[in-house]
Amino acid sequence: MDYRFSSTMDSFKSSAVREILKLTQGKSIISLAGGLPNEQYFPIDAVRDAFSRVFDEGKQVLQYGLTEGYTPLRESIAKHLERKNIHVGVDDMLITTGSQQAINLLTSVMIDPGDVILVERPTYLAAIQIFQSYKANIISVDCDADGMDLNDLELKIKQHHPKMIYVIPTFSNPSGKAWSLERRKGTLEICKRNNVLILEDDPYGELKFGDGETFPSIFSLDEHPTGSCVVYTSTFSKIVAPALRTGWAIGDATVIRNMTRAKQAADLHSSTMDQQALHQLFQHFDLHGHIDLVRSEYEKRMHQMVDLLKKQDWPGTRWIEPKGGMFIWLELPAHIDTEQLLKQAVQEGVAFVPGASFFADAPERNTMRLNFTHTDHDKMVEGIERLNRVIRKAL
Amino acid sequence: MDYRFSSTMDSFKSSAVREILKLTQGKSIISLAGGLPNEQYFPIDAVRDAFSRVFDEGKQVLQYGLTEGYTPLRESIAKHLERKNIHVGVDDMLITTGSQQAINLLTSVMIDPGDVILVERPTYLAAIQIFQSYKANIISVDCDADGMDLNDLELKIKQHHPKMIYVIPTFSNPSGKAWSLERRKGTLEICKRNNVLILEDDPYGELKFGDGETFPSIFSLDEHPTGSCVVYTSTFSKIVAPALRTGWAIGDATVIRNMTRAKQAADLHSSTMDQQALHQLFQHFDLHGHIDLVRSEYEKRMHQMVDLLKKQDWPGTRWIEPKGGMFIWLELPAHIDTEQLLKQAVQEGVAFVPGASFFADAPERNTMRLNFTHTDHDKMVEGIERLNRVIRKAL
Repeated sequence: MDYRFSSTMDSFKSSAVREILKLTQGKSIISLAGGLPNEQYFPIDAVRDAFSRVFDEGKQVLQYGLTEGYTPLRESIAKHLERKNIHVGVDDMLITTGSQQAINLLTSVMIDPGDVILVERPTYLAAIQIFQSYKANIISVDCDADGMDLNDLELKIKQHHPKMIYVIPTFSNPSGKAWSLERRKGTLEICKRNNVLILEDDPYGELKFGDGETFPSIFSLDEHPTGSCVVYTSTFSKIVAPALRTGWAIGDATVIRNMTRAKQAADLHSSTMDQQALHQLFQHFDLHGHIDLVRSEYEKRMHQMVDLLKKQDWPGTRWIEPKGGMFIWLELPAHIDTEQLLKQAVQEGVAFVPGASFFADAPERNTMRLNFTHTDHDKMVEGIERLNRVIRKAL
Repeated sequence: MDYRFSSTMDSFKSSAVREILKLTQGKSIISLAGGLPNEQYFPIDAVRDAFSRVFDEGKQVLQYGLTEGYTPLRESIAKHLERKNIHVGVDDMLITTGSQQAINLLTSVMIDPGDVILVERPTYLAAIQIFQSYKANIISVDCDADGMDLNDLELKIKQHHPKMIYVIPTFSNPSGKAWSLERRKGTLEICKRNNVLILEDDPYGELKFGDGETFPSIFSLDEHPTGSCVVYTSTFSKIVAPALRTGWAIGDATVIRNMTRAKQAADLHSSTMDQQALHQLFQHFDLHGHIDLVRSEYEKRMHQMVDLLKKQDWPGTRWIEPKGGMFIWLELPAHIDTEQLLKQAVQEGVAFVPGASFFADAPERNTMRLNFTHTDHDKMVEGIERLNRVIRKAL
């Protein structure tokens, strides 16, 4: 049989993260590469209890569910979002298989081949893969420590007439940065004025370090949900556990209804077991207390990694201390190619993600993403030491 | 905000089944419409036990999983398939969110806009929706009680050069029919000769009535998995429970690898909780004994419905007694439009699915699908009586 695949397959580049994970499997490599939450803080007893409560309700819990998602869970999430000044009803929300699926469904609903999507520079690599699979024309907007450069955003909107922009304004993957309030408001204003939809991806927003500055979602700054210029997506993967694979999207009910039609064709609905269990978790577990625990532990780990990086004092190397999330983004001197560096690093017994995959265009090859949530302190010390040997050699 | 949706949204027709489910919600309507398994036979104690065993393994069960699916579950499914003369390894298999997702992913991997897919006449309505969403050119092949008409299949392959054919040869949705061995072999031979991929959808194959005739999958009749002309998909929804939303696809490793890349962009992976629980179920539950129970109960219900239909003796009405599955397909006299009939039926307090939605082209409007698995006997009697009143009036 000669398999004749669709042209979509030409758009799929294989993911650097996955290739690295393959390299590191079964070896004694310290991985600072993955975007994994720390298992230590998975609330397994509460999750077990939540499933048990679901089974107590009887056999009908095992039946097919609505494509839109389990209604009581949508109610629970809507209530949870009120803390974030987000006010939506169940018809403004779709439950998805992780927020990854929400990005995919919105893209299918909005994007024809050749349509332009503006993204941050750098941005989440799996989002780039999704946009490529729909043959979108992906264009990067310049960014600094405060978020998107509003002049460059406006310029690129005038030049390229995008249908959509994709942003992770709060504790971004990979850069770890948090946009200033002014940039959030400015981006919203520019997009509204130019009729460009904003996809605001917020998987890390709950993982805020310290008690200071708050970071309101762009969605909460717009009139919402009806007529909103923003579709907002988030997930339980980072605040409860990834195995339950449950995320959600909120937005104008028309957009959500179209995403629901796309989901009906995609997989009918997400696991109803997981959805029912998460609803029980909201009822019988102090989720917000748990989030506080996770973020204080992650903050400790972030400081440990920052201290280790400071000690190395690599010449010409920069990073921004993250105000939340899971990642530190390193810029090494311009002549260093981190994809080359990775090969030596793996031999030395440490892995990271080379930055190039996070650029939709003109990759900055001297960058890398380090994860600080998954590796315990002793291993982190050893991992950064190994990295030091490789970087010293390259410098 | 003026939302500018993609042209894909023009392809989505809303599903008749869903509209009917909406009509019947909260009313005392007897629904013979849905494709629901009977809750009474959901093995809830075994499923509860399986989840409990998963939690016993510790916190790492809540971490991210592989896109390909939980490896021990793939091993369990491979072993289960040996009973059906199917011999595959874990690299020839992808776990999906129901078999619906398997159909979607294979379509994305194979079909460019305008590519031709041949389907049965009638066929599964959600598959039509998926193919439409990829802008495929869907063409029906004539069928009789034994399966696809091989002359028409060969003719349409010569005329339209399809990339793929989609078939449900065993206890089809909606027609309930089972293809003869000769048609299975003939279809395989013709497709191999013409280099056309077969998507064999087998959600109902385990629900066989009686001890006679067996129905080998087309996949098992081809050399497999390497170089196979067939991708085979099935699900746990009908033999365990739909809420766990777990299906699988098997085929040549190259095809599976491409589907895996598409799944990575679609949702990263399916619920790992459900996958781990299903693996535990294989280890600690007599799944095959359970399947025997379900099929004997469904067979009883099928006979009950057939007896009721015989009693009505509607003039000019035909059906084939199903040899398995969940549905009976009725052909009424040519002048009756079942979509019109449904409106009166709902007023009378009974629902069914009008047949028109199951045709990719030239719908036969005098047809309907009845489900016999979900309604208990007393209600089934009452439902068919209500249907009788509506049909008598229309005749």
